[in-house]
Amino acid sequence: MSMSDDQALHSPRAWEAPLTSLDKGVPTLAEPIALKDVAAQRWNLLAEDLPLPAAILRESALRNNSGWMRGFLEGADADIAPHGKTSMAPALFDLQIADGAWAITVSTPQHFAVACAFGYRRIFMANQLIGRRNIRDVLGALKTSPEVEFFCLIDDIDNAAALAASVRECGSGRRLNVLVELGYHGGRTGCRTAEAALTAARAVAAEADALCLAGIEGFEGLLYNDGAPEVVAQVNALLDGMVSVAEGADTEGLFGSDEVLLSAGGSAYYDIVANRLAETRLTRPKRVLIRSGCYITHDSYMYVRARAALARRDPALAATGGLQAALEVWAYVQSRPEREKAIVAFGKRDASHDDPPLALKWFRPGLHAEPQAVPAGHEVVRLNDQHCHLRVPVDSPLRTGDMLGFGISHPCLTFDKWRVMHLVDDGYRVTGSIRTYF
Amino acid sequence: MSMSDDQALHSPRAWEAPLTSLDKGVPTLAEPIALKDVAAQRWNLLAEDLPLPAAILRESALRNNSGWMRGFLEGADADIAPHGKTSMAPALFDLQIADGAWAITVSTPQHFAVACAFGYRRIFMANQLIGRRNIRDVLGALKTSPEVEFFCLIDDIDNAAALAASVRECGSGRRLNVLVELGYHGGRTGCRTAEAALTAARAVAAEADALCLAGIEGFEGLLYNDGAPEVVAQVNALLDGMVSVAEGADTEGLFGSDEVLLSAGGSAYYDIVANRLAETRLTRPKRVLIRSGCYITHDSYMYVRARAALARRDPALAATGGLQAALEVWAYVQSRPEREKAIVAFGKRDASHDDPPLALKWFRPGLHAEPQAVPAGHEVVRLNDQHCHLRVPVDSPLRTGDMLGFGISHPCLTFDKWRVMHLVDDGYRVTGSIRTYF
Repeated sequence: MSMSDDQALHSPRAWEAPLTSLDKGVPTLAEPIALKDVAAQRWNLLAEDLPLPAAILRESALRNNSGWMRGFLEGADADIAPHGKTSMAPALFDLQIADGAWAITVSTPQHFAVACAFGYRRIFMANQLIGRRNIRDVLGALKTSPEVEFFCLIDDIDNAAALAASVRECGSGRRLNVLVELGYHGGRTGCRTAEAALTAARAVAAEADALCLAGIEGFEGLLYNDGAPEVVAQVNALLDGMVSVAEGADTEGLFGSDEVLLSAGGSAYYDIVANRLAETRLTRPKRVLIRSGCYITHDSYMYVRARAALARRDPALAATGGLQAALEVWAYVQSRPEREKAIVAFGKRDASHDDPPLALKWFRPGLHAEPQAVPAGHEVVRLNDQHCHLRVPVDSPLRTGDMLGFGISHPCLTFDKWRVMHLVDDGYRVTGSIRTYF
Repeated sequence: MSMSDDQALHSPRAWEAPLTSLDKGVPTLAEPIALKDVAAQRWNLLAEDLPLPAAILRESALRNNSGWMRGFLEGADADIAPHGKTSMAPALFDLQIADGAWAITVSTPQHFAVACAFGYRRIFMANQLIGRRNIRDVLGALKTSPEVEFFCLIDDIDNAAALAASVRECGSGRRLNVLVELGYHGGRTGCRTAEAALTAARAVAAEADALCLAGIEGFEGLLYNDGAPEVVAQVNALLDGMVSVAEGADTEGLFGSDEVLLSAGGSAYYDIVANRLAETRLTRPKRVLIRSGCYITHDSYMYVRARAALARRDPALAATGGLQAALEVWAYVQSRPEREKAIVAFGKRDASHDDPPLALKWFRPGLHAEPQAVPAGHEVVRLNDQHCHLRVPVDSPLRTGDMLGFGISHPCLTFDKWRVMHLVDDGYRVTGSIRTYF
């Protein structure tokens, strides 16, 4: 792609809704502001130009992360179809495409519709396609947009038959690309054994007028990501199974595509995935496709741990650079009702809360020139919908009106809390705003 | 208000964004559809006209709940400022106003901006107003919209002084109405003692050119809502404290308004709140204001328990009728990978998850004429972002492609997962769509 990272992050579509005062994190405006005109407002978070809570993305961290992943993939001989469901933010998809992403991964037909509307040409739906309207809408889009290449999963012969019937009924003359999903006992979707997956692959091949068996897929992302040896063994077992299914399907001549996709998802074990799947021996070309979504923003907890595990198992890879947390949620101290408690004006509607947000940065307007590290002992102990209960030391300097910057765990469940996020430079000057489409 | 419930639910503003295929729960459309034109599409959930997951609101339940609350308030001599933050759906605010709501409650300056944009004239922000831009935006709106009556909270004399300074600087010539918030130890915001609250009230009265002490406020909604006697005692202690602060402020002549507001929030104890606050003895008129938000949709778990507790403490009130769960999330069975597991295609991005959703209704297209009760033994055991892990009995009839209707716990954290929800009649015919503004 010829687009620079800078252009990619700052190329909103002209038809995207402008910012208005209805949007959380956007100040009251005399007139709506087109996304392309946001930088010209010269807002600065630290000058209190934004109403809080507001979610920001540090541009330097986004570019660092995107660049690191590009380098990793060059070394690994793998491609990425970054999981778009993480952010549902086309500005970030653009950055990922500019850095060489082979496709955009999505999770649902609505995500697919968004990706189509924004003009992405290769879309990987890492899910089964189920339901009359969902199937009809996806097949309809593929019929009217022949330039869009699409892939989805199956784990069930009945689903293969149903999809094939829908494809014939749709009459687009295009086959639907499907990958058979291998799962594992206790996991999520996916065939539970390699034999069941091969059976599904044969069912797809038997519908060769309507379906094209394009690869084998698995999802290791639910396996606990602390990198413990027994978990890595589970990840490897799944990957071994995928290799076995792929080699078996190849031997039986079941694949319908010139190139076989071998793809596994998740943001914790992509190094293992890329290495193991590369060993698959097939009679036709293969493409190893990882689908990490969270690397682009990284986070301040869950993926910090996953990254530490990666560094333990592959110090050389970790030495190529680190991922940086790009996403922060900023909010005001709203009340200091008890000596050891501060209430901060954000909550479950603003940040992921499976793991609590981390109070990282402290800024007092009028006093500080730049954000300070939050002193030790400040801990989020409870989130309500719109409030955060922060336990503080008795000598905490925090007072009402202070600004706090929180790091989050698990970007996916923070992105979906925001319709607008602001891009900032390292001085917290707003360089643009991006929309999400959940 | 002269508007009927029917008109209220079906009066979208002409400027609201039409439905497009970018919206979750909306089918692929040849052209965007204005909200007012949705009913004419004659979509039916059970005919699979909608892509799933989709969130629906049963109109009959909304009307039942709105009507029940109207009756309760007539009997209790109290008013309601329903908490708009529950739904952030102006269509529901309209229904609540049509049924006599005195004001709309909001939680944040962004909510306030939304309520202003939709033309509500009396807005109660049940929170402190903190931060330069937040304060400036709210005061600016009040300056340009003199018809809007606004109230917010303080719990801190420094905040009173800061707000007063901002009011003077804004130069609107309008005083800002504030209520002093009483809290309780271990709670959220609010002064921790009646004496501290009186001190805050005096600080407000001392800024009488800029601030108007308009009432006393508390929030009992965080107290565990199972109605246990010790919890009810805590609720009563807070209410007793509010009465004491109000009577003390009245004796000292601190109130600046003709009418004193006495308001407490929450959707579990409003009967206790209304009764206790009505006993306050003041030298000027008072208005008791409850702020329940969740009654309008009710739910299938958390508020079912709260309602059962209400029925135990006030059987006569409960005998006046029940609240009905209006909000359901529908999704497809996506995979049946193990005998005792079904994966359903919705997740944490579609439903509140502090308590798991409940699989209530089952519908197989082509087989059923109407939704069936889900047989016993089907239980949500885990939610991922986009997937639900449903434990099922070994003889479960569920298969891939079946539709399931889930009841949810805590409507606030389900509403914010949807930009569009569909109104349906009892036959699941779509009678309109509403937008939320989070």
